Amino acid sequence: MSLDRYPRGVLVPALTPFHADLSVDEDRLVAHCRWLLDEGANGLAVFGTTSEANSLSTGERMAALERLIEGGIPPGVLMPGTGCCALPDTVALTRHAAAHDCFGVLMLPPFYYKGVSDDGIFATIAEVIERVGNRRLRIYLYHIPALAGAGFSLPLIERLLTEYPGVVAGLKDSSGDWKNTQALLAAFPGFEVFPGSETYLLDGLRLGGAGCISATANVHVGAIRALVEAWETPAADAMQQQLTAVRAAIEKFPLVAANKAILAELRDASGWAVVRPPLRPLAAEARERLFAALDALRFPLHTPHSMA
Amino acid sequence: MSLDRYPRGVLVPALTPFHADLSVDEDRLVAHCRWLLDEGANGLAVFGTTSEANSLSTGERMAALERLIEGGIPPGVLMPGTGCCALPDTVALTRHAAAHDCFGVLMLPPFYYKGVSDDGIFATIAEVIERVGNRRLRIYLYHIPALAGAGFSLPLIERLLTEYPGVVAGLKDSSGDWKNTQALLAAFPGFEVFPGSETYLLDGLRLGGAGCISATANVHVGAIRALVEAWETPAADAMQQQLTAVRAAIEKFPLVAANKAILAELRDASGWAVVRPPLRPLAAEARERLFAALDALRFPLHTPHSMA
Repeated sequence: MSLDRYPRGVLVPALTPFHADLSVDEDRLVAHCRWLLDEGANGLAVFGTTSEANSLSTGERMAALERLIEGGIPPGVLMPGTGCCALPDTVALTRHAAAHDCFGVLMLPPFYYKGVSDDGIFATIAEVIERVGNRRLRIYLYHIPALAGAGFSLPLIERLLTEYPGVVAGLKDSSGDWKNTQALLAAFPGFEVFPGSETYLLDGLRLGGAGCISATANVHVGAIRALVEAWETPAADAMQQQLTAVRAAIEKFPLVAANKAILAELRDASGWAVVRPPLRPLAAEARERLFAALDALRFPLHTPHSMA
Repeated sequence: MSLDRYPRGVLVPALTPFHADLSVDEDRLVAHCRWLLDEGANGLAVFGTTSEANSLSTGERMAALERLIEGGIPPGVLMPGTGCCALPDTVALTRHAAAHDCFGVLMLPPFYYKGVSDDGIFATIAEVIERVGNRRLRIYLYHIPALAGAGFSLPLIERLLTEYPGVVAGLKDSSGDWKNTQALLAAFPGFEVFPGSETYLLDGLRLGGAGCISATANVHVGAIRALVEAWETPAADAMQQQLTAVRAAIEKFPLVAANKAILAELRDASGWAVVRPPLRPLAAEARERLFAALDALRFPLHTPHSMA
């Protein structure tokens, strides 16, 4: 696939590590993001669902983003999540990301009120774009209706693309509905569609998709990147099969807790398992079942890794 | 009913008026709250769902609360909503409300992540209580599963009452499920249960309920208060019937927009109709249907009112 000036391929919604007192462990976050890039991540969709971003205050999110950049993570690979329930929060986070030269932002629709109209979501995105007023702003729409209770329909996307060409740049499709991803790819050529799981990576790439943004990339981004590089080779289908099996094994468990449990094991660092309420860490019994399933798939759970 | 030292009866989730630029119209908010108290509100559950509180930043919510108190609204009648997705935000708002001597706070569970466990919600509320560390804190749980995607089960409430007696003081039941309200009233005598609609006011009072916290109280709090006063008289059932009919007429429409449209009409102030995205104002045609339905119920839509 052609990697143009914006990151495509595998983008990682980096997990947010916490100290025991539940404050953000910024040092460990920087180290994790650096490791993800070293292992092959094309970009980092920090502060997404998997990052527990909606459990962070806007102040914590801005501080952590600044820390990542100070820590040497290039803003040109960063696509921070900025969509909140409250318009002023979304504006503040988006303005902050654009001011720090992040290549794009991933924008949830407001997610408290249910049954909102396409017109109401359009008005939200339009207000954000007008208020941020940064011509370099690139917005990726975050379609995850099961959590947000609101999403981006095809007519709404068309309206946004017509009104804000170049600004509304793409979409993460976490609907889990491959038919929706297909419809998006067919309807909007050039619009950067990232399925929200590596399960649809190969199918997506074959239809012109931009790659994937996947929670489980936190624990095996190298294998996903390998498929991004090899998708046109005869090995691609077997590689996809293995990725799909690993994903299926992990997503039997709550995704954030499961990913953090795996990282705690990989790093031999129990602090990685800490989640913020309302999420809970994986119970010991679930962890053992998860690890057994991964071992059966020859997932390198016990290989020594360089980073702590 | 006995009104003890905490407000019971009808509590109003006061609408939040906006200027044309979508900033909070604090002057109009103060005037509205004063009018609600003059008309008979027993308390004000400001910054609830009807207040579009989840479309406000924490800074806007704290500034508006301070303005209400400076404007003469007694903190002893105030039960601000403080439950956010992010623990630090919930802690900040709750601490702020307690520091300003509000009699209680109305606490949503974190509402982004779905399928969270009772244990995760318990951990959230417990963290807030421990971090706020104010012995006068009185928390009212906000059970509105259709919007929050998470709620307070009976076993969870029991656990909270056991762990934090006196702190966890009551619950607003916006499930719309009368069987749930009945179960709460039966299970926890003395726990202050407020149905989330005046439709269940009389039934609730007869079973020991604390009153109601209702969106539509924004536009006819006097009539609801009259039933609070008269619920043991022979007139009560007819009064309830009329309240129920008015509520049914209004809730055929999106509640926030409908209430704001009615206030715009009552006050002859079109600015009242402004909502923040993702909500949208009522379309002219819907407004006419709503007003016709209210006229048919002899709802005093065109009576001159004293406040602008």
